Amino acid sequence: MSNYRIQVQYDGTRYSGWQRQKSSGETIQGKIEQILSRLTETTVKIDGAGRTDAGVHALCQTANFRLTEEAESLFGEDAKKVADELFRLLNTYLPEDIRIRKVEKAGERFHSRLSALGKVYCYHLQKRDRYNVFERKYSWQLTEEVSVEAMKKAACYLEGRHDFKGFCTKSGKKKSTVRTLRSIAIRETEDDIYLTFEGDGFLYNMVRIMTGTIVEAGYGRRTPESVQTVLETGDRSLAGETAPAKGLTLERVLYD
Amino acid sequence: MSNYRIQVQYDGTRYSGWQRQKSSGETIQGKIEQILSRLTETTVKIDGAGRTDAGVHALCQTANFRLTEEAESLFGEDAKKVADELFRLLNTYLPEDIRIRKVEKAGERFHSRLSALGKVYCYHLQKRDRYNVFERKYSWQLTEEVSVEAMKKAACYLEGRHDFKGFCTKSGKKKSTVRTLRSIAIRETEDDIYLTFEGDGFLYNMVRIMTGTIVEAGYGRRTPESVQTVLETGDRSLAGETAPAKGLTLERVLYD
Repeated sequence: MSNYRIQVQYDGTRYSGWQRQKSSGETIQGKIEQILSRLTETTVKIDGAGRTDAGVHALCQTANFRLTEEAESLFGEDAKKVADELFRLLNTYLPEDIRIRKVEKAGERFHSRLSALGKVYCYHLQKRDRYNVFERKYSWQLTEEVSVEAMKKAACYLEGRHDFKGFCTKSGKKKSTVRTLRSIAIRETEDDIYLTFEGDGFLYNMVRIMTGTIVEAGYGRRTPESVQTVLETGDRSLAGETAPAKGLTLERVLYD
Repeated sequence: MSNYRIQVQYDGTRYSGWQRQKSSGETIQGKIEQILSRLTETTVKIDGAGRTDAGVHALCQTANFRLTEEAESLFGEDAKKVADELFRLLNTYLPEDIRIRKVEKAGERFHSRLSALGKVYCYHLQKRDRYNVFERKYSWQLTEEVSVEAMKKAACYLEGRHDFKGFCTKSGKKKSTVRTLRSIAIRETEDDIYLTFEGDGFLYNMVRIMTGTIVEAGYGRRTPESVQTVLETGDRSLAGETAPAKGLTLERVLYD
């Protein structure tokens, strides 16, 4: 079996997220697996580094999958030719809102999720009355003026190693909700605000709940310090609303 | 009557162009006029600087319209308040793919088209195998490798004052097809090529036919010099194909 690593870009608008689902609703993983399985006439399973929610986008998601020698031989005689042909065929059969940006043979032990050292997510906010129509499906349009200073203060409390139980939906009782959020960088332009989160891992809805909470601090509806109480109590109801999925993009997955 | 000037941004994907039409199909002009007319309970006509084709976008289209004193008084007691209220109401009632970026009172003699000194259009090409899903509706995805050098050479022949009859569709027999194309700037990035056209005016489909022709030179299907023959003969059939509308954006309109 050979191990292949792919970089995937997608507009998540019309998908039920990355992860394959038994119920109805198309997923990005499902789409790619379907094509790989048809092409190879075998069952191909792919592993993605981040299980993006329904409606969340990816600039560069990483995934990997294994092919039997027999399946490989359908695409070319060496790894480079197999990768090139997989790239071409996947992009031919995938819908235009999913694109493969790169295919390469990976080391035997590479696993997109387990080998990842971290992930970078970006949340895009459009300022009130400064909406750009071309970004409307990939950003959250704010309805009030925000104080970026207050947002930065709130974000500071979130950086570091914490139990983020209060910033996730449906946390399992057994699994750890401790994560290290290495940084939240907030960049402001004339029309936009970009929140870039880098961390070792993110819980379900964690970036969206953190964003919703930071925006509430920006609106002046809560103090920046109130974020600390959410961390201390682990009480989801004390955090802000979950920001809309459409503003969130998985920017990249970090490896050695 | 007071004269108001507006800056309009739109995603042209689902519209039959800027200009109001009697037949079916929604237009951007039609949408804005409809709202202004309802708000004022009068008939408001707006003039746009550029009549963008069906499917063409605008980053910053300029238009103007006149309001009676009575209509103005519905929105506020001074020009600033009227402008602010028009901005708010138009953006409330317009669909999310059309946004008003600015409303301001203009001089009595200002006319968006007649006062314009020129226009800037940008055509966005995505290189083969370098597609960005987030730009797919606002760019043309090339299917072959192109030589940007050849494209630049072809573009050089088009710059300047020429009869662009061979680069337009349905040219009226009486109207002049002479225009001054001040510059075509071609900028290449890792994944994209941007063609920026600045001129005193553009004929029907002119930017798209020039782009289609420049791309054919880039593909090596025609020589850069062949562009000259199109200019000399005015023969549309010697020019390239009309590039898709979706890659074209009216960037801005130039005034004094």
